[in-house]
Amino acid sequence: MVLNGPNLNLLGTREPEVYGHATLDDIMRQLIDEGALFDCTVETYQSNYEGALIDQIHRAAHEKFDGLIINPGGYTHTSIALRDAISGVDLPTVEIHLSNIHAREQFRHHSFIAPVAVGQIVGFGAAGYSLALRALAGYLNT
Amino acid sequence: MVLNGPNLNLLGTREPEVYGHATLDDIMRQLIDEGALFDCTVETYQSNYEGALIDQIHRAAHEKFDGLIINPGGYTHTSIALRDAISGVDLPTVEIHLSNIHAREQFRHHSFIAPVAVGQIVGFGAAGYSLALRALAGYLNT
Amino acid sequence: MVLNGPNLNLLGTREPEVYGHATLDDIMRQLIDEGALFDCTVETYQSNYEGALIDQIHRAAHEKFDGLIINPGGYTHTSIALRDAISGVDLPTVEIHLSNIHAREQFRHHSFIAPVAVGQIVGFGAAGYSLALRALAGYLNT
Amino acid sequence: MVLNGPNLNLLGTREPEVYGHATLDDIMRQLIDEGALFDCTVETYQSNYEGALIDQIHRAAHEKFDGLIINPGGYTHTSIALRDAISGVDLPTVEIHLSNIHAREQFRHHSFIAPVAVGQIVGFGAAGYSLALRALAGYLNT
Amino acid sequence: MVLNGPNLNLLGTREPEVYGHATLDDIMRQLIDEGALFDCTVETYQSNYEGALIDQIHRAAHEKFDGLIINPGGYTHTSIALRDAISGVDLPTVEIHLSNIHAREQFRHHSFIAPVAVGQIVGFGAAGYSLALRALAGYLNT
Amino acid sequence: MVLNGPNLNLLGTREPEVYGHATLDDIMRQLIDEGALFDCTVETYQSNYEGALIDQIHRAAHEKFDGLIINPGGYTHTSIALRDAISGVDLPTVEIHLSNIHAREQFRHHSFIAPVAVGQIVGFGAAGYSLALRALAGYLNT
Amino acid sequence: MVLNGPNLNLLGTREPEVYGHATLDDIMRQLIDEGALFDCTVETYQSNYEGALIDQIHRAAHEKFDGLIINPGGYTHTSIALRDAISGVDLPTVEIHLSNIHAREQFRHHSFIAPVAVGQIVGFGAAGYSLALRALAGYLNT
Amino acid sequence: MVLNGPNLNLLGTREPEVYGHATLDDIMRQLIDEGALFDCTVETYQSNYEGALIDQIHRAAHEKFDGLIINPGGYTHTSIALRDAISGVDLPTVEIHLSNIHAREQFRHHSFIAPVAVGQIVGFGAAGYSLALRALAGYLNT
Amino acid sequence: MVLNGPNLNLLGTREPEVYGHATLDDIMRQLIDEGALFDCTVETYQSNYEGALIDQIHRAAHEKFDGLIINPGGYTHTSIALRDAISGVDLPTVEIHLSNIHAREQFRHHSFIAPVAVGQIVGFGAAGYSLALRALAGYLNT
Amino acid sequence: MVLNGPNLNLLGTREPEVYGHATLDDIMRQLIDEGALFDCTVETYQSNYEGALIDQIHRAAHEKFDGLIINPGGYTHTSIALRDAISGVDLPTVEIHLSNIHAREQFRHHSFIAPVAVGQIVGFGAAGYSLALRALAGYLNT
Amino acid sequence: MVLNGPNLNLLGTREPEVYGHATLDDIMRQLIDEGALFDCTVETYQSNYEGALIDQIHRAAHEKFDGLIINPGGYTHTSIALRDAISGVDLPTVEIHLSNIHAREQFRHHSFIAPVAVGQIVGFGAAGYSLALRALAGYLNT
Amino acid sequence: MVLNGPNLNLLGTREPEVYGHATLDDIMRQLIDEGALFDCTVETYQSNYEGALIDQIHRAAHEKFDGLIINPGGYTHTSIALRDAISGVDLPTVEIHLSNIHAREQFRHHSFIAPVAVGQIVGFGAAGYSLALRALAGYLNT
Repeated sequence: MVLNGPNLNLLGTREPEVYGHATLDDIMRQLIDEGALFDCTVETYQSNYEGALIDQIHRAAHEKFDGLIINPGGYTHTSIALRDAISGVDLPTVEIHLSNIHAREQFRHHSFIAPVAVGQIVGFGAAGYSLALRALAGYLNT
Repeated sequence: MVLNGPNLNLLGTREPEVYGHATLDDIMRQLIDEGALFDCTVETYQSNYEGALIDQIHRAAHEKFDGLIINPGGYTHTSIALRDAISGVDLPTVEIHLSNIHAREQFRHHSFIAPVAVGQIVGFGAAGYSLALRALAGYLNT
Repeated sequence: MVLNGPNLNLLGTREPEVYGHATLDDIMRQLIDEGALFDCTVETYQSNYEGALIDQIHRAAHEKFDGLIINPGGYTHTSIALRDAISGVDLPTVEIHLSNIHAREQFRHHSFIAPVAVGQIVGFGAAGYSLALRALAGYLNT
Repeated sequence: MVLNGPNLNLLGTREPEVYGHATLDDIMRQLIDEGALFDCTVETYQSNYEGALIDQIHRAAHEKFDGLIINPGGYTHTSIALRDAISGVDLPTVEIHLSNIHAREQFRHHSFIAPVAVGQIVGFGAAGYSLALRALAGYLNT
Repeated sequence: MVLNGPNLNLLGTREPEVYGHATLDDIMRQLIDEGALFDCTVETYQSNYEGALIDQIHRAAHEKFDGLIINPGGYTHTSIALRDAISGVDLPTVEIHLSNIHAREQFRHHSFIAPVAVGQIVGFGAAGYSLALRALAGYLNT
Repeated sequence: MVLNGPNLNLLGTREPEVYGHATLDDIMRQLIDEGALFDCTVETYQSNYEGALIDQIHRAAHEKFDGLIINPGGYTHTSIALRDAISGVDLPTVEIHLSNIHAREQFRHHSFIAPVAVGQIVGFGAAGYSLALRALAGYLNT
Repeated sequence: MVLNGPNLNLLGTREPEVYGHATLDDIMRQLIDEGALFDCTVETYQSNYEGALIDQIHRAAHEKFDGLIINPGGYTHTSIALRDAISGVDLPTVEIHLSNIHAREQFRHHSFIAPVAVGQIVGFGAAGYSLALRALAGYLNT
Repeated sequence: MVLNGPNLNLLGTREPEVYGHATLDDIMRQLIDEGALFDCTVETYQSNYEGALIDQIHRAAHEKFDGLIINPGGYTHTSIALRDAISGVDLPTVEIHLSNIHAREQFRHHSFIAPVAVGQIVGFGAAGYSLALRALAGYLNT
Repeated sequence: MVLNGPNLNLLGTREPEVYGHATLDDIMRQLIDEGALFDCTVETYQSNYEGALIDQIHRAAHEKFDGLIINPGGYTHTSIALRDAISGVDLPTVEIHLSNIHAREQFRHHSFIAPVAVGQIVGFGAAGYSLALRALAGYLNT
Repeated sequence: MVLNGPNLNLLGTREPEVYGHATLDDIMRQLIDEGALFDCTVETYQSNYEGALIDQIHRAAHEKFDGLIINPGGYTHTSIALRDAISGVDLPTVEIHLSNIHAREQFRHHSFIAPVAVGQIVGFGAAGYSLALRALAGYLNT
Repeated sequence: MVLNGPNLNLLGTREPEVYGHATLDDIMRQLIDEGALFDCTVETYQSNYEGALIDQIHRAAHEKFDGLIINPGGYTHTSIALRDAISGVDLPTVEIHLSNIHAREQFRHHSFIAPVAVGQIVGFGAAGYSLALRALAGYLNT
Repeated sequence: MVLNGPNLNLLGTREPEVYGHATLDDIMRQLIDEGALFDCTVETYQSNYEGALIDQIHRAAHEKFDGLIINPGGYTHTSIALRDAISGVDLPTVEIHLSNIHAREQFRHHSFIAPVAVGQIVGFGAAGYSLALRALAGYLNT
């Protein structure tokens, strides 16, 4: 399961010179295709609600997904509830950010999610999702 | 009214060796029974949405409940909005946590809810709800 | 568009000696009237959900509103997601608070919204909305 | 064993409008009676000496008490020695405070005792001792 | 009385592309005119001396002005003496800043004046004085 | 009552070039004489035990002394229990230090006692006791 | 020389229920009389200007005064220049505050002046000047 | 160019149950092979000397390498000189860590390198090098 | 003189798998024997009272002991009074801890005693006393 | 223009063993002579008033001086208003300190002026003015 | 193996009145002799290069030394790489400092090495090496 | 002796629009010529190794150089070992930085070198070396 947090639905329609013209839908569709090459079914979800993301994480565990890829957007730095959801369901999770959060404002450097994730990939734009998928696949194979 | 915050719906199904086999439903049903012994009607609610919890607190005030018991889960440490809801409605509130938050990570020690609650009970597992009910009943009698 | 965050729906019914007897509906209706004098259509919205506020900001941009007035309530001090929504849609935004947040608890002094807003108006009660409307109108004219 | 730290001997004779008219002796006698209902022998002790409290904790372990209830008063926030005594003897301990320490000065929010206690009960006045006794009894039964 | 602190005498002659071509005199004259519409006499003063601003605040109280509007410039963040003057004379005070101080350097976010003011208006340029005058008039009417 | 905390019994016998040759007994005897001139009975006490000082404060209240002068020595900076004792008994208290604590190590600048005292006198050596006695007498007369 | 900093000229005319009805002139005149009893000439000065206070300190040294008593008001907590003036002229200095600065806001606890003063007297109102005079006289005699 | 910092030469021979049996040489050789599939020449280097790593970064720029992959080991958190080398040569750089640094000690969370890198990949063990190579290749193609 | 602070009387009877089976008495008796080999008389003392330890330090100075070895236990991190006692009597002092305090909780890293001691020995268990005795003997010989 | 801040008028007459026997007048006269060798007219000014220094900076800009040399004395560490004056007039500015501020108290290490100056020269005594003049001349030539 | 970090090669030739006339060679030779009495072979090494010290630690592990004694000099407080080397090779390590680092500047109090060492010995000059050798020998025997 | 730290060998070849086209060699050669005018022999050295810089400082002392000029580059902010080397050899040292470190990132404001240097010159580019040479010559003449 691939979860996208708040404001990621704006991708492609806002500041295309920074984030590119690809919409979140484009990127997710490509990721599903890429997953198919690995015989891996990718389901994607986006919400601006912290609670909705938590609900999905619970569902992923309930329906026995193999792992999570999550771009928690602005909730990265503030949501202990999201962190608890991930550590509660105990699914291997890869955290991803489009931009290099360490080169932005001080308050974006810290992630509540990272310590309960397998790993973190930041700064490679949309390509980061693809790297995360490979990273998760590799992790599940070991 | 007894409110339960994010991830508490996982109780009993996840890490039973730590949190026991009782589900949140089991615990809440037992609490309702226990309340009945006091001639006290207990209504319970769980949500992973911060906004939904705030809505319930407003409703509790509107429908003239006597008091609140709340386990705010991960929102304990981050939600000023929840705090404002409680202090806004001015219902006597007891905060409860299953685990001893002071023996966990540094960021779990601080509670935004505690200063606007009557008191706080932490570390006694499911039994804490029962203690909270008695504490609230005692408070209302004085 | 005028957005009101968590607990502002309690206005007028709680602590009237502090916040006055006017409800949020009263204040919003008066603001709509006042806007009409400027030939300016005012739409108002209140929610206790962080995600719902973000959705509305997106809609405001999508439907090409001229600007935003927002009283983010308790989310002022905790919501990076709300900040990202505002800076993402790039609509001129005025932040308003009824009370003087700088004369309250330390944790209310900092606003995640202020740095991405045009300006901030605090401490003038319901009159602050009217000032914000004029400030926004003035800003749009320059 | 129930331990009471510095200044608790002032109870009942000072600021009765805040702390009530019951003296520490009254409260302790009632607790002993309440314990008797559980077939549980309660021994109580008060001292203004940090060392004397530590000595009692050692004695409790030496004489094989089942557990401790402690209201460490002002030593809560400064005494690492008291904490070491509790973790050294490894008796289940419940920490109690009459007032809601989280609603008082900043320096009273932190407790050196809490991380080595089973749990903490704050804010319910003299009733807190009774809750602590039940909490401890419950803990020992599981 | 409208007080302007250090460096505000540079307005209009320095960095006009940022602060506009209007001098402080222009802005103050317009404010006096605007006040006249309200039957409100506006007196203005500017100084680069902390002590001179304090003297004026004392005079304002002595001569029974109705309220103060103050743009304390760089003294906003460092002057406890200015704060004491305002709280000492107990005149309703509105603090104003031309730029959005929350979008500038960290050391400009904090104001010693704000907690003793009725409210604060930041980020609307010269228009802020006009908003402040209305805010103060509104405050005095309630 | 005049209370002296830990290590003050060393006065006169240690580092006489710094603290002078007068012992604590000398200074206390002179203070008793000086008090006699005011028709004021001075009782003095020294202990290295935090608890013993607390016990004396309780006794002072119980025996209806008019006020306290206290040199808390090293407990100044760490003892919340001592602070609680003073605020618990509600006797007017003057805090005194022989040396200028603000010109010594950083950790000596803060006093837990000062906020619950009437005032503080530091840096005047043994003469400080005499000043404290006059200060207390003056306070009691108003 | 007795120096009084910003806002002390308001004494007696503002908040008389807190600070008493005595004006600064009354207090200073009484201090001059009291000094005369010691054959000690007292000169007094008040200014709201930091620079003016520094000028007076220089003059005090130039004209060979024996010592300084200073109530630096709001400059206590912010003025390194005032501190440098005192340590530069090397006159024995007693710092005095009418109110107990340690029982007020956090930012009033620290004094830049204290480390370069002989001692500090806080919390005894106008009587503090008299204590300071005696303290300084005592210091000069040893 | 792939740079490895201090202690990475221990890989495979120490704590194989944690870091696996692959030595750094094994991993580097596999990376060179993998690079060959992309028609990309990979050169690798390891040193325990901060200065030697800086020398290599300069050489990489001088010899016109396309980009850098760096695992700075313990220098990640302390070396401003390494950061300056990277930002000085202006080669696109990917930072990689075998373990999840955000799940380890507090002092390992901060990286001086990250803000001057394109992105950061942490937590995927040896597989991280392969992800970094793809990430860098992807970056260079856009 | 060898001083042992709070909880050290538990040695040998608690957590023997961590601290060994030797009691404090065993260790002290062995130290006295070892001292005898150096023609050095060792006197030992243990108390859970901060004040009692201070009293002993005073006595050591009064009876002209050559030096002190102190294991201040939990008072290490909080007791300024103990520090003042040591610096007041000016006896060469060696601080010792059984466990490696730098590898334990953050609040155990700082010692108020260390800056006034000759040196500090931590982490070598009971053997640390023997090392301290040699260190002190060596110091006294130079 | 060369500006000297508070207490620099004491130079030469106070602590000559530290600061030398040269008065500020001597140093300034020599600097004017030295400037003449460069065909550079040097005007000097000293004041203990923050506002007076700001006035001079404004005048320097108004009268089209080429640059500023400023020794802000104690205002270095506290005056945002002085900083704003310099950045407001946009004249190249060199900051100078006689003593090495980095080898003095912690609160003297930070300068509000330095970030808006071209550069800073500290620690070379009176010779620093001469270096500053050359530095400024060099800067203006490039 | 005994490792000495930066600047320790200056011993004996610089500030002999503080550090004594013994050079590092003298001290090391004496330590080798002392080791011989224990049938323990001591090898010593000094370098000013962080990387060289790390290389030696690796070699010590590779060549199966029994333990390390290290005086990391200035790297104590800054080198995470050195810490990683020690924890990576898992050799019992004793940290030693000639001077009492806790009585020096604040930044010397913290050691990155201490948490991964068996213990730490500070403040006994050259004699500390001898104590460290005995401490390490004792540790290896248990 | 003139020492240049890490990355200064890139001067002139990287970012010439910022740092100019002069290489470090050009600048050093010019400095040697300039020194010759003073009959002062200048030797220069650059290294990216912290240890190599320390070695050179030791050599400078051993070979009785008169003083040091050092641009420590990135080691300025992290190297206690470099600081110890300078304070260990006790040669008068001038610290220089090409750019104005106080106008850059927060972590570049602090220098470990400055407190043990005679003075610091920052922000004047290559001209700073020339100023440093004159400053050092001036210092040595007094």
